[in-house]
Amino acid sequence: MIKAEVITIGDEILYGQITDTNTQWISAELDKIGINTVRKSSVGDTEEAILQIFSEAKQRADLIIVTGGLGPTKDDITKKTFCKFFNTSLAVHKEALEELTAFFRKRGREVTGLNLGQAELPLNSTFISNKLGTAPGMWFEDEGKIFISMPGVPFEMKGMMSDLLLPKIQEHFKTPVIFHKVVRTVGIGESLLAEMISDWEDNLPENLKLAYLPAIGDVKLRLTGFGNDLESLEKQVEDAFEEVMPIIHSYVFGYGNIELGEAVGLLLKEKNQTVSTAESCTGGYLAHLFTKVPGSSAYFWGGIVSYDNSVKMNQLGVKAETLEQFGAVSEETIKEMAEGVRKRLGTTYGLATSGIAGPDGGTPEKPVGTIWIALSSEEGTITRKLTLGGFREQNIHLTSIQILNLLRQNLS
Amino acid sequence: MIKAEVITIGDEILYGQITDTNTQWISAELDKIGINTVRKSSVGDTEEAILQIFSEAKQRADLIIVTGGLGPTKDDITKKTFCKFFNTSLAVHKEALEELTAFFRKRGREVTGLNLGQAELPLNSTFISNKLGTAPGMWFEDEGKIFISMPGVPFEMKGMMSDLLLPKIQEHFKTPVIFHKVVRTVGIGESLLAEMISDWEDNLPENLKLAYLPAIGDVKLRLTGFGNDLESLEKQVEDAFEEVMPIIHSYVFGYGNIELGEAVGLLLKEKNQTVSTAESCTGGYLAHLFTKVPGSSAYFWGGIVSYDNSVKMNQLGVKAETLEQFGAVSEETIKEMAEGVRKRLGTTYGLATSGIAGPDGGTPEKPVGTIWIALSSEEGTITRKLTLGGFREQNIHLTSIQILNLLRQNLS
Repeated sequence: MIKAEVITIGDEILYGQITDTNTQWISAELDKIGINTVRKSSVGDTEEAILQIFSEAKQRADLIIVTGGLGPTKDDITKKTFCKFFNTSLAVHKEALEELTAFFRKRGREVTGLNLGQAELPLNSTFISNKLGTAPGMWFEDEGKIFISMPGVPFEMKGMMSDLLLPKIQEHFKTPVIFHKVVRTVGIGESLLAEMISDWEDNLPENLKLAYLPAIGDVKLRLTGFGNDLESLEKQVEDAFEEVMPIIHSYVFGYGNIELGEAVGLLLKEKNQTVSTAESCTGGYLAHLFTKVPGSSAYFWGGIVSYDNSVKMNQLGVKAETLEQFGAVSEETIKEMAEGVRKRLGTTYGLATSGIAGPDGGTPEKPVGTIWIALSSEEGTITRKLTLGGFREQNIHLTSIQILNLLRQNLS
Repeated sequence: MIKAEVITIGDEILYGQITDTNTQWISAELDKIGINTVRKSSVGDTEEAILQIFSEAKQRADLIIVTGGLGPTKDDITKKTFCKFFNTSLAVHKEALEELTAFFRKRGREVTGLNLGQAELPLNSTFISNKLGTAPGMWFEDEGKIFISMPGVPFEMKGMMSDLLLPKIQEHFKTPVIFHKVVRTVGIGESLLAEMISDWEDNLPENLKLAYLPAIGDVKLRLTGFGNDLESLEKQVEDAFEEVMPIIHSYVFGYGNIELGEAVGLLLKEKNQTVSTAESCTGGYLAHLFTKVPGSSAYFWGGIVSYDNSVKMNQLGVKAETLEQFGAVSEETIKEMAEGVRKRLGTTYGLATSGIAGPDGGTPEKPVGTIWIALSSEEGTITRKLTLGGFREQNIHLTSIQILNLLRQNLS
């Protein structure tokens, strides 16, 4: 198996001043094409540290991917250090200069001073185009090992890697043909899911590999097929999922990178139906999960965040007696909230949340994490009581996932 | 200067299946006590890889901090590998067993099989208590170098590090006394801020170090003082900030880890005033920034997410003529939204947002990123037009920050 190392260069990452999201993304992409990351490292902007990690990595790995240190200022020494490492020197690269000039011209500017240096590349490097920024990438081959250098800006790095480098890596290393598919599940924990499908998993063909990718509130199942022929692999993976689907179908909300809010939105759009929200403990976050999706205005009409009881009464029509007799966190109140928002906003569905998100406000009868959710439609109103533990933000997130899932189940 | 290396152990991190937030947090904490992280590494759950990184790190650094691989299952081999590295063996540790037993008893369970192994520690280690989980931490001294081993679960690791290990590290390495203070600013970019205060920065005493920690929408200024006496350091740092405050005070919203939504909440609480929100393009996210703060129900009464124009008219009282003549993204509409929500929810302030968050919906006159915000109070209504670029989620976040800042300015 091809071994890779991923290296980030930069003091800001080393000192914890900025979050490094690049290495995770890169190793996940390598994993998808069957390349094993064996080490990740971050070093600072010093020649000594960079040379040392290059030497080490070259001994251990076949492919060394480096991000960062390609900016125009004098702190950025990656290129100079590559030259030292490969015993070569920098020279203006024609294509790099053309691309840089075009990049600046498009923005009505000329390439000047410091930026001109960005068109200089080590003589032994292959130029990798950067459509989204001013620092080109580089590809080096040295004694059978491949080094790749990319800018540290995440969207520039991702663009370059997806469009140019991943195909080039696959070609160079003649990696096996790979097909992978991700099934998204919600409403079931990783271990229970693993138990339910263990027979299926145990009987998967040798060339199919299953990975569980759990997050808070949902679990991704990724099935990767390794082989020689894309078409037959695709069929093999699809067939394998089809086999397990009768067991898991009620938890599956989509495929690939889709989020639950988007999946529910697609179902609503398909049926030409609309939704509105009445939120107490989730405080706007449920609406945000709908509205962060482009085009959500087609089915999400709006919501009421009713933190204060006056808002529950005046904007949602919850009865004062209900609040007095049962409290804001109760089946009776949540029902009136969901029905109220549906009626007032005139949508097919009305969703409501009310509970004690914490850390304060809990009582012996209603401890922190006691949460009611409801879904109202013309067929009536369904309510559920959740008993969550956890921290405030986690309770807010999990409650929103649970009610989105309730709507999903109702729509499917 | 003391040199540290931070090592994470675990295949899930190496393959990009989970996000590593530990190393950033650890190196930031070390930075605060004047310890320099010189390398960060992730390796997989194999003895060979772990032994190799241990040997390397021991040569380069004075302090080696290791997280992960302490779970009860057989994949978790960190402790066994420490034994091999230090040529020692595991034995049940009395205090560890007591703590483990108490942890389980509190949850009504007995310590069994696999978990019992968690009370075994390498003979040369010092036991570090874990109040939040079942895997204790360990402290090793070997040939003048310190190794620390902690569980990978972030909140367990953070608790252990903050409460026990950071003080122990400071004591062991006799690090200089350190005092640091973070000033939080909003509404100004990093480079402009740096320019404004460059004279002040250049004239800071030798023992004070300034760091800019930028995020989307806000910039943190951290001033760290190194010395021998905490009291005089504290005074020195406070005095230095006081000196620059006349230049930056209008951008400062708080100190330390506070978020803007919380800072605005404190101002409202202090004045016994309340707020409500009318959101179009931010779609609930602004309400979420208020309501994620514990205790926010004291000043945040509620909000209307008015995605559909019918909701703008019926729930906020925006006039049909206004929408027809000027459109939803206009000064006229945003004014009626802010006034409407304030009046209907009966709060001191009404905030409103309406704009084109993208990626679709832009026109030549109103491209993506054209956003109106408004603040209504009994003194009248203030409006602002924002011209953002960027992606949908960034536009949503920045708009929310801008309107929170508008309210903050009005409150101060």
